[in-house]
Amino acid sequence: MLSTSPDIGCECATRVISRCRELALLTDVPGETTRLFLSPATRNAHGLLMDWFREAKLEVSIDDIGNLRATRRTRVGAPTLILFSHIDTVPNAGPFDGPLGVVLALEAVVQIGQAPLPFNIEIVAFSEEEGVRFRLPFLASRATVGELTEADLKSTDPDGVSVEEAIRSFGLDPARIPSSCPLPASAFAALEVHIEQGPVLESEDKSLAVVEGIAGQTRLQLTFTGKANHAGTTPMTLRHDALAAAAQLIVEAERYALDNSPLVATVGRIEAIPGAINSVTGTVHATLDVRHPKDDVRRAGVAALLIQAKYAAAHRSVTLRATVLSEQPAILMNRALTNRLQQSVGNAGYDAARMFSGAGHDAMVVAPHIPTAMLFVRSPEGLSHHPDETVRTEDVNAALITVVEFIRQLEFGY
Amino acid sequence: MLSTSPDIGCECATRVISRCRELALLTDVPGETTRLFLSPATRNAHGLLMDWFREAKLEVSIDDIGNLRATRRTRVGAPTLILFSHIDTVPNAGPFDGPLGVVLALEAVVQIGQAPLPFNIEIVAFSEEEGVRFRLPFLASRATVGELTEADLKSTDPDGVSVEEAIRSFGLDPARIPSSCPLPASAFAALEVHIEQGPVLESEDKSLAVVEGIAGQTRLQLTFTGKANHAGTTPMTLRHDALAAAAQLIVEAERYALDNSPLVATVGRIEAIPGAINSVTGTVHATLDVRHPKDDVRRAGVAALLIQAKYAAAHRSVTLRATVLSEQPAILMNRALTNRLQQSVGNAGYDAARMFSGAGHDAMVVAPHIPTAMLFVRSPEGLSHHPDETVRTEDVNAALITVVEFIRQLEFGY
Repeated sequence: MLSTSPDIGCECATRVISRCRELALLTDVPGETTRLFLSPATRNAHGLLMDWFREAKLEVSIDDIGNLRATRRTRVGAPTLILFSHIDTVPNAGPFDGPLGVVLALEAVVQIGQAPLPFNIEIVAFSEEEGVRFRLPFLASRATVGELTEADLKSTDPDGVSVEEAIRSFGLDPARIPSSCPLPASAFAALEVHIEQGPVLESEDKSLAVVEGIAGQTRLQLTFTGKANHAGTTPMTLRHDALAAAAQLIVEAERYALDNSPLVATVGRIEAIPGAINSVTGTVHATLDVRHPKDDVRRAGVAALLIQAKYAAAHRSVTLRATVLSEQPAILMNRALTNRLQQSVGNAGYDAARMFSGAGHDAMVVAPHIPTAMLFVRSPEGLSHHPDETVRTEDVNAALITVVEFIRQLEFGY
Repeated sequence: MLSTSPDIGCECATRVISRCRELALLTDVPGETTRLFLSPATRNAHGLLMDWFREAKLEVSIDDIGNLRATRRTRVGAPTLILFSHIDTVPNAGPFDGPLGVVLALEAVVQIGQAPLPFNIEIVAFSEEEGVRFRLPFLASRATVGELTEADLKSTDPDGVSVEEAIRSFGLDPARIPSSCPLPASAFAALEVHIEQGPVLESEDKSLAVVEGIAGQTRLQLTFTGKANHAGTTPMTLRHDALAAAAQLIVEAERYALDNSPLVATVGRIEAIPGAINSVTGTVHATLDVRHPKDDVRRAGVAALLIQAKYAAAHRSVTLRATVLSEQPAILMNRALTNRLQQSVGNAGYDAARMFSGAGHDAMVVAPHIPTAMLFVRSPEGLSHHPDETVRTEDVNAALITVVEFIRQLEFGY
């Protein structure tokens, strides 16, 4: 199949990038980009996006979890393609994690122009994905698939404001979530465009990746308890050094993951108590994060690493307590739609990588309900969640041509 | 040589212990034992000790660094035996680290009674050893050997009070330090009794150890700089994990020390940045503390471990910066006096261990100036710097009989 896309040209990609940078100025913390769920900055972002959506002649609405939705309607009762991403950010974020998917979707719809399509397109700008304000990620996408719970609504932010109070303060009505939030019953396909937030595309020198799924993830809290002792007066053979035990696990976890690619295992947080230069460590609190596209491989990895941790502890007469903090199964994107997306990349004249996402995304919440595909755009230096996070114009251009191509191909069914 | 000591009996040891516990009630922080250099609690401790010293008919004085000194004078111009320890404490300390050596010295002098001796005995209760208030340890003993510097006097505590201001506030005169503080020129021998603060005597089931010297010590600050990355999106082969590098060093340091006993190597402080459960660590700050009785062995160990640290960093493309925070050569006790002390233990009917101290003590400051010996008393469970720090009555009894024996043997010269 040959490309039906004209060369859209870089000025459109440049506009996508400059719009993301314009949105990044809308912040709850002056001098940086920090845009929290249902905050004043979110209201400002809604205002700016609504201007752009209306300029493109889209129907605009805000649902009761604060998602901004813009529809290109073909006819009532037509099937609907959903293009989505999120517009909240982590503290001191970059301009592209989230907003790129929304702004690029709009640009793609603009490029489609008046061309007749047999389906509606709805762009959904999720109000919450990062989990910063309420420590609960994906509140917005979960509301659109009917998975928001009463407990979620009662959760409070650090100021003691609950989710439902925040919704009301924003002028919305939590009681209407079940009616206003669900994705349309007519939705037949969904696509998320997002920056990779990792170094794989950079290392493979590719602009785009087609995402096969989101890796499953287990997070553990580990506590090694030995005995705090004087570092000068305690011979090595009489020590019960909790930090040495934890260090052995860290080294083994790295080795195990290297031997079992694409499994990743990470100890990211560590606290040694008492933490004095002249003390043998009595207690270590550490975290272990294990991810793999296949749930059984991840579970086997967690089991193996727990045995390594126990061994590292036992031969120092240190005890280990391990608690599972969270466990998230792998989520597969829709295979047919994903292949269709891969074809669109090829038609656009590019060669996409095919990969699993190691990070969670809204696509993971939507995919079990609507056939979903996901496209990654290269992250220079793998950088994200940082003010220097950026994208290359050529890569955004590639993504834009691909999405236009994808939409056009969907005319022919998938 | 047979013992000339009567069996002193446990009631004297019991009195030593109860006096230490009485001193422990004199604190700057109610509810715990925290007695800082030249604090109100130090003044109260001086008062109580002076009562006990005067009851024993000793001449009492306070020098201008705040050392309380008590002398049993034989005749003017006689040589002087110094018995010393310190009476300041770490925060939330136990009752015995420091005070035991002072109170036990007094009890030994009481036991000597009116027996004629060819030398004076001066008990010195050092006002500062732990380095808590001014982050400068051994201020008091250094003043008695002429090693206190102008810079020391200008140093300030967390409230901005300088050492010399603290001295003046206590009613003393910093200008008189060079005249009032030096140990007497007649000093021919010195002895420190201190709790072991480690588990060696406990593991060897002995009451006492004769200390051959204080191990030398190197303290290093290590900074591993890799790259902070997302733990989900960064494949293992593309990571530069500073914590994995530091962990490898921690494991290697433990192994190296186990293979090179009695070397001890300790990483006691570690900070991983950013320190998030889902982040690969970009930077680690850690400390490394290496000790050995022989300076050349310690230096070779430090060099070997720095190579291990560099290797752990290099193969992850992590960089290492190592800074020497402090370097302290090993200090030997006087050999003849130490052998004499060992004999006294034997005469008292005990079998002493012979060991190096891994912790610093005032004996380390005094030894280069006056022939010095040091006696350790078993620390149950190796515990010190803790409210539960304790001593066994039988062990204090052994130390007391030994010190009385040691003083009596010194009649015959050494």
